Amino acid sequence: MKCDAYRVAELARVARGTVVGDPDTMVDGFAGLSDAAPGDIVYAEKDRAVEAALAGPAACIILTSVPPDSSRTFIRAAGPRLAFARILHHMAPPRLPPRGIHPSAVVASSAKVGEGVSIGPLCVVDDGAVIGDGSVLTAGCYVGRDATLGVACILWPHAVLYPGVHLGDRVIVHAGTVVGSDGFGYVHDETGAYAKIPQLGTVVIEDDVEIGANTAVDRAALGRTVIGTGSKIDNLVQVGHNVAIGAHTAVSGQAGIAGSSSIGARCILAGQVGIADHVTVEDGVIIGAQSGVPTGKRIGKGQVVWGTPARPVDEAKRMIAALSMLAKGRRRGPKHGPDPAR
Amino acid sequence: MKCDAYRVAELARVARGTVVGDPDTMVDGFAGLSDAAPGDIVYAEKDRAVEAALAGPAACIILTSVPPDSSRTFIRAAGPRLAFARILHHMAPPRLPPRGIHPSAVVASSAKVGEGVSIGPLCVVDDGAVIGDGSVLTAGCYVGRDATLGVACILWPHAVLYPGVHLGDRVIVHAGTVVGSDGFGYVHDETGAYAKIPQLGTVVIEDDVEIGANTAVDRAALGRTVIGTGSKIDNLVQVGHNVAIGAHTAVSGQAGIAGSSSIGARCILAGQVGIADHVTVEDGVIIGAQSGVPTGKRIGKGQVVWGTPARPVDEAKRMIAALSMLAKGRRRGPKHGPDPAR
Amino acid sequence: MKCDAYRVAELARVARGTVVGDPDTMVDGFAGLSDAAPGDIVYAEKDRAVEAALAGPAACIILTSVPPDSSRTFIRAAGPRLAFARILHHMAPPRLPPRGIHPSAVVASSAKVGEGVSIGPLCVVDDGAVIGDGSVLTAGCYVGRDATLGVACILWPHAVLYPGVHLGDRVIVHAGTVVGSDGFGYVHDETGAYAKIPQLGTVVIEDDVEIGANTAVDRAALGRTVIGTGSKIDNLVQVGHNVAIGAHTAVSGQAGIAGSSSIGARCILAGQVGIADHVTVEDGVIIGAQSGVPTGKRIGKGQVVWGTPARPVDEAKRMIAALSMLAKGRRRGPKHGPDPAR
Repeated sequence: MKCDAYRVAELARVARGTVVGDPDTMVDGFAGLSDAAPGDIVYAEKDRAVEAALAGPAACIILTSVPPDSSRTFIRAAGPRLAFARILHHMAPPRLPPRGIHPSAVVASSAKVGEGVSIGPLCVVDDGAVIGDGSVLTAGCYVGRDATLGVACILWPHAVLYPGVHLGDRVIVHAGTVVGSDGFGYVHDETGAYAKIPQLGTVVIEDDVEIGANTAVDRAALGRTVIGTGSKIDNLVQVGHNVAIGAHTAVSGQAGIAGSSSIGARCILAGQVGIADHVTVEDGVIIGAQSGVPTGKRIGKGQVVWGTPARPVDEAKRMIAALSMLAKGRRRGPKHGPDPAR
Repeated sequence: MKCDAYRVAELARVARGTVVGDPDTMVDGFAGLSDAAPGDIVYAEKDRAVEAALAGPAACIILTSVPPDSSRTFIRAAGPRLAFARILHHMAPPRLPPRGIHPSAVVASSAKVGEGVSIGPLCVVDDGAVIGDGSVLTAGCYVGRDATLGVACILWPHAVLYPGVHLGDRVIVHAGTVVGSDGFGYVHDETGAYAKIPQLGTVVIEDDVEIGANTAVDRAALGRTVIGTGSKIDNLVQVGHNVAIGAHTAVSGQAGIAGSSSIGARCILAGQVGIADHVTVEDGVIIGAQSGVPTGKRIGKGQVVWGTPARPVDEAKRMIAALSMLAKGRRRGPKHGPDPAR
Repeated sequence: MKCDAYRVAELARVARGTVVGDPDTMVDGFAGLSDAAPGDIVYAEKDRAVEAALAGPAACIILTSVPPDSSRTFIRAAGPRLAFARILHHMAPPRLPPRGIHPSAVVASSAKVGEGVSIGPLCVVDDGAVIGDGSVLTAGCYVGRDATLGVACILWPHAVLYPGVHLGDRVIVHAGTVVGSDGFGYVHDETGAYAKIPQLGTVVIEDDVEIGANTAVDRAALGRTVIGTGSKIDNLVQVGHNVAIGAHTAVSGQAGIAGSSSIGARCILAGQVGIADHVTVEDGVIIGAQSGVPTGKRIGKGQVVWGTPARPVDEAKRMIAALSMLAKGRRRGPKHGPDPAR
């Protein structure tokens, strides 16, 4: 994609990298390796990618080891992808709506709106809500009574914050996502019907969290549902009431975490993972796609698990391999298995 | 959480319980056991919980068996959790927007709006729609042409009711949920392309149903999709066209029910369950998390099933145990493995 | 359902079928077989359905082989269901809002609005957006900066198109669906925190695509996420960044496709299927419900696969059967199975 032109020296500074070659080289676009055009900047991490980049027309290549005897221009960086991300933020900053309150927005007089805030068309900001400095409500967003946003948050269209929920600083919430809906809490009454347990707690989204589109984060029954600093939640994720997610954890699309479960810091939950209620996932755990973790289970620090019920990934793979063998009529294990010749 | 103060005698009456101790004890808050502060009311169901409650500062404890020789104040109730839920409804009733139609709402002149209705900012109520007495549309809700709501319904922000769908009394629909979208019905035409089968039926949501956030309930192709009285549907659930869900059934987060399947009364579908099309689940069935029920299958009354394909839970567990053994290189059964001849 | 009355001759022409019997028979309604009333038109594909139709009161039956000696009126068509669909489109066309821009809509002066467009209440159309001739934005829809819609598109309430995405002609997007949200792209920075990789690509939805409710289609990191001509996407589906879906493919409810995966033409993904990243699914593949396809995997043309990890359906079924046997203490295969003693 093309954009304004930048000197490589400037981009290297942004990327916290080093120029090798001509720092006055101009870059006016960015691309993936297979799409690079003259003037573009690209990044390459593996050897094969570096070769492809060198064979292509890019004006500047971000990489870790500069090849000898090249007359090209490079930015050397320990993490080329991270450097590229920083350069993209610089070359193509998000185009957000202008500051101010659109005349079609409905903002309660008791709401506190900070400096440099943008409240777009058809947003609703209810009584007592707080919109921190520099935050942006793009369009059609709903911020309920006494809900609070820190500074520099972005709500994409139709994001919904129920009353009383709290967002830290620089939180991004994508379109259609709901924060603070009632948890799924009922108790049978004398007739066997479900009586609703009022959901009176709240949700706290800490700083630098980003939440994808059409996700649902339930408020706590009592107390708080928490998503920790820097964690990233994908689209269509369910976060149940009283769940606690630690810092810098990634939850992929369509994963679901049931009530009162706790996920540690720096975990990765792959797509469509299901965590039942009252589960404890310790720090640094990786849970493979579509895994299911049963009620009350604990997964120890740093484990890599997979399957339903989730177990150490090697064990899960052995189980599948063994079953495949079994279905083919062979015993597992090369020595005592049946003779494939018969 | 703190709130107005109430006499225990009043709370016992609300809870349909009995005071043991001083009925004039004042309660000005409520909490879970681990967070209780002086003045709070708590509930305790198991012995260990009762001990914890007695060791804590709560002003009043709801329980089933009052310990001898205690000078504390109790509410005795057969179901402490149910009693607590009723007390929470009393102490912390939902704060809903004021009655009346917000000037920013767009309400068709042909719509029928009952007594004591609240239609919040930026709602749309289309031609011929009916909003029953005391119903609340919080903000940004859409009620399509000829859709009807009974009395005392609550639509949370951005709930969408397509044209012609029907909600009974006291139905709650959370934010972002869609009722009445077209079912997924196509037929191949002569060129192999999909031709859309018009989805001309409707949806009927019976009394006392609650539906979570960002759920989708499709209208029937012809006829009706039905969710029965008192059933509770969680977030991000898919209910396909012509599905019938009986009364007092619970469907947990991210479960999906494909077209024309029928779920009985008083069933429980756990999280991420998938029900294929034309399935019959009879009354009182419990389906474990992530289970899959194949097309056309019937699950008999009161069964507890798990797995994909779903089968009786004991059998499913035995299969997993057997596979685990197999993968470890051991035959199932401790020493000699079962003799296949017997 | 009852509607205006039509001559069978007219309906046969619409259905591209042939009248057998009286072409002047009047039809004033349509129904499924079990609900047919006098005056209705029904269709019947299997012998049993034909018998049921003949035993019922329908005024006209659509079928492939007309029974001898019947005095009833029929429309003979190679595909009765397709013929019925065409007749339904004719008898019960969608009731869309009137042309014109509702006064409560917020339409940027730089947006290009075609002929015969309907922009309903509380829609937002941002700078530079293009709404093709005859397209309909029902209510509360958001069309971001420079997003484009072709002719005759329908956006149901609260559909969200992020800036810069493109819809072809006759695209239908159901309520709450989000097109163009940021992909889930991060890279660890020096502190171990996630740095966001700006998502600067777009989404292209080709002609005749229909997308269900509360689905999320992410924009590409760079380049395009594509949904091909005539493909149909159900509710609550996740389409990751840089995914390419071919033409005439069906993706059922709650399926998810992770970043950079490619799905061929004329594929069927059943409900809750999970496709990891960088997967290649070739043309004509059918993937059974809840299957999981691991990262980087290729599924060859026309395969029918099932399970996690997905494998040919016969193999998957054999594995389940073998496991069931094993759990029951029996070896697989009654006669020639291996001797457990060795």
